Amino acid sequence: MAMNFKTIQWKDEAVVLLDQTRLPEEHRERVCHSVEELHEAIRVLATRGAPLLGITAAYGLCLGLKDFHGEDTEAFFSEIKRVSDFIRSSRPTAVNLFWALERMRLVAEKHTDKTVSELRALLFEEARLIHTEDERLCRAIGESGAPLIEDGDVILTHCNAGALATGGIGTALAPLYCAFERGKKFTVYADETRPLLQGARLTAWELERAGIDVTLNCDNMAGVLMQKKIIKKVITGADRIAKNGDAANKIGTYALAVLAHYHRIPFYIAAPYSTFDFECSEAADIPIEKRASEELKKIGTTQIAPFSVKAYNPAFDVTPHTLITAFITERGVIYPPFDQTLATLQG
Amino acid sequence: MAMNFKTIQWKDEAVVLLDQTRLPEEHRERVCHSVEELHEAIRVLATRGAPLLGITAAYGLCLGLKDFHGEDTEAFFSEIKRVSDFIRSSRPTAVNLFWALERMRLVAEKHTDKTVSELRALLFEEARLIHTEDERLCRAIGESGAPLIEDGDVILTHCNAGALATGGIGTALAPLYCAFERGKKFTVYADETRPLLQGARLTAWELERAGIDVTLNCDNMAGVLMQKKIIKKVITGADRIAKNGDAANKIGTYALAVLAHYHRIPFYIAAPYSTFDFECSEAADIPIEKRASEELKKIGTTQIAPFSVKAYNPAFDVTPHTLITAFITERGVIYPPFDQTLATLQG
Repeated sequence: MAMNFKTIQWKDEAVVLLDQTRLPEEHRERVCHSVEELHEAIRVLATRGAPLLGITAAYGLCLGLKDFHGEDTEAFFSEIKRVSDFIRSSRPTAVNLFWALERMRLVAEKHTDKTVSELRALLFEEARLIHTEDERLCRAIGESGAPLIEDGDVILTHCNAGALATGGIGTALAPLYCAFERGKKFTVYADETRPLLQGARLTAWELERAGIDVTLNCDNMAGVLMQKKIIKKVITGADRIAKNGDAANKIGTYALAVLAHYHRIPFYIAAPYSTFDFECSEAADIPIEKRASEELKKIGTTQIAPFSVKAYNPAFDVTPHTLITAFITERGVIYPPFDQTLATLQG
Repeated sequence: MAMNFKTIQWKDEAVVLLDQTRLPEEHRERVCHSVEELHEAIRVLATRGAPLLGITAAYGLCLGLKDFHGEDTEAFFSEIKRVSDFIRSSRPTAVNLFWALERMRLVAEKHTDKTVSELRALLFEEARLIHTEDERLCRAIGESGAPLIEDGDVILTHCNAGALATGGIGTALAPLYCAFERGKKFTVYADETRPLLQGARLTAWELERAGIDVTLNCDNMAGVLMQKKIIKKVITGADRIAKNGDAANKIGTYALAVLAHYHRIPFYIAAPYSTFDFECSEAADIPIEKRASEELKKIGTTQIAPFSVKAYNPAFDVTPHTLITAFITERGVIYPPFDQTLATLQG
């Protein structure tokens, strides 16, 4: 399954992004000719999603180094540092962005004997590699998870862990794309995912575009969809998974997992193995970002709540491993007991 | 506790409504000098909430009869019918509107011997009575439920079953207003209640205005609020309750009840006794209104989903009685076994 849109491309010495702030109204590209333009694109969330941000940062570094002239290697290394620091400042909490820039730095460090042109070529090659690796990773997650999808299935998903968040076919949505490719007949329900509506704006958009039957629902409708036995499976992504299987993901995931448990519906989390943080032993160790209360009070230009009212707005919640049926990873589907199965796969 | 706003008033031969379409941005009155203006106000939801619609319809009939001149009783009765039919056409599924107009009709029917002036006076008196009865009903629900609220409590509510939906202090929110009046210290979380955001727009507004500590949350955050043991009790309203205690209420109520059950948190429904439908033996008999999918795709002028995507949009869901801790009614708090306790109170 190849998506009929590209979230990121390197084209004519520029980084071409699918402008996600314009979705679902418009499918428009945002061309970044300079690292300053790319920085701005990340900052305004024109591009988003952990894996995609890693790829963007890597290409972004190449873009920033275009303006370096001459053959002074030492100056070039300083420039790598300067540009990387600048990119990092676009979204200070995006771990994948840091990870990709660190990987780029190590490539350069390993080749201090090379010329500036050679270094430039090596860095570009590494950025390409980060991109293609992500594509392969998504595909592998999809292949692992596809056999779980059966004809007649109705799958509920939350937020957007789709192609739009990656350089490939997504994480949580990858098994769906692979199953679709294999001719499986199934339907998807997409939680709209308040407050930022990634399900409505992005998941509904990309699934519909791929030709997959998708129905949008408000987050508070997941319960009745399960009560009516409409939903057969739940698949979400994850932002960070502890050693014991406790998983942090977009706010609302925990409630879904409880509802699935109550209705005896399998609850899967699809994520690359890199999402597992073996330094983190359990849920309590996962820090949760609290976002601005304003996000709950305005949509576009429309005020939807008194501006003076307090609002609770955590970005994520943590689902205990006891509520998770299995993890779908590029290394296969991992079932409980997670303390044993996850440990075996480590390394 | 008296609210510092009035949802409806009869003033200088006009019906003065608090314009709920302007909330929370503006607190503005909408003056209806004619039944046509009142019809339009109902149609655009400037006034809403089952009890309030009943009061509005009753005053609306008086308003419509203002233009009747002369002393021809037969013609006056025809006019009552014409105006009532017109009001009924504003929101064809609003049961309370029908109920109030039927009650007004019966008053007139009982006094066919009276003059037009006398009939007019009797009808106005009945409209006033419907209004003051609703105030007393809200107050009585509040008094029943107030003892359930303890110092330090944190109560989650859904949608708006508050003063804004009634001529008094509300239904689900009435116990909170009464407890507040008695000096109880507690906090409220308000589900924003997608898709129409009554929690964000109305509940947050009226509680804040009353000086009650309120925090807004997205519907999908109720789970994590319970997981963190923040929420101690849930109170919602109901639109219709079957003989066995199964209760239809705003979409999302069922999911809340399941979450409360899982976390062992009491789940109360506050509603006037008239909400109990003894003709309806269980949940399956309650018809559920499906609303337009467009409600999920646009907020104000902002598009939030592809217009082409399908959307699931039931207005209500049904919570089985097994998930309900008790009903808070004007006749007291009613605990299980509901098949016995509800039957005893009937009639």
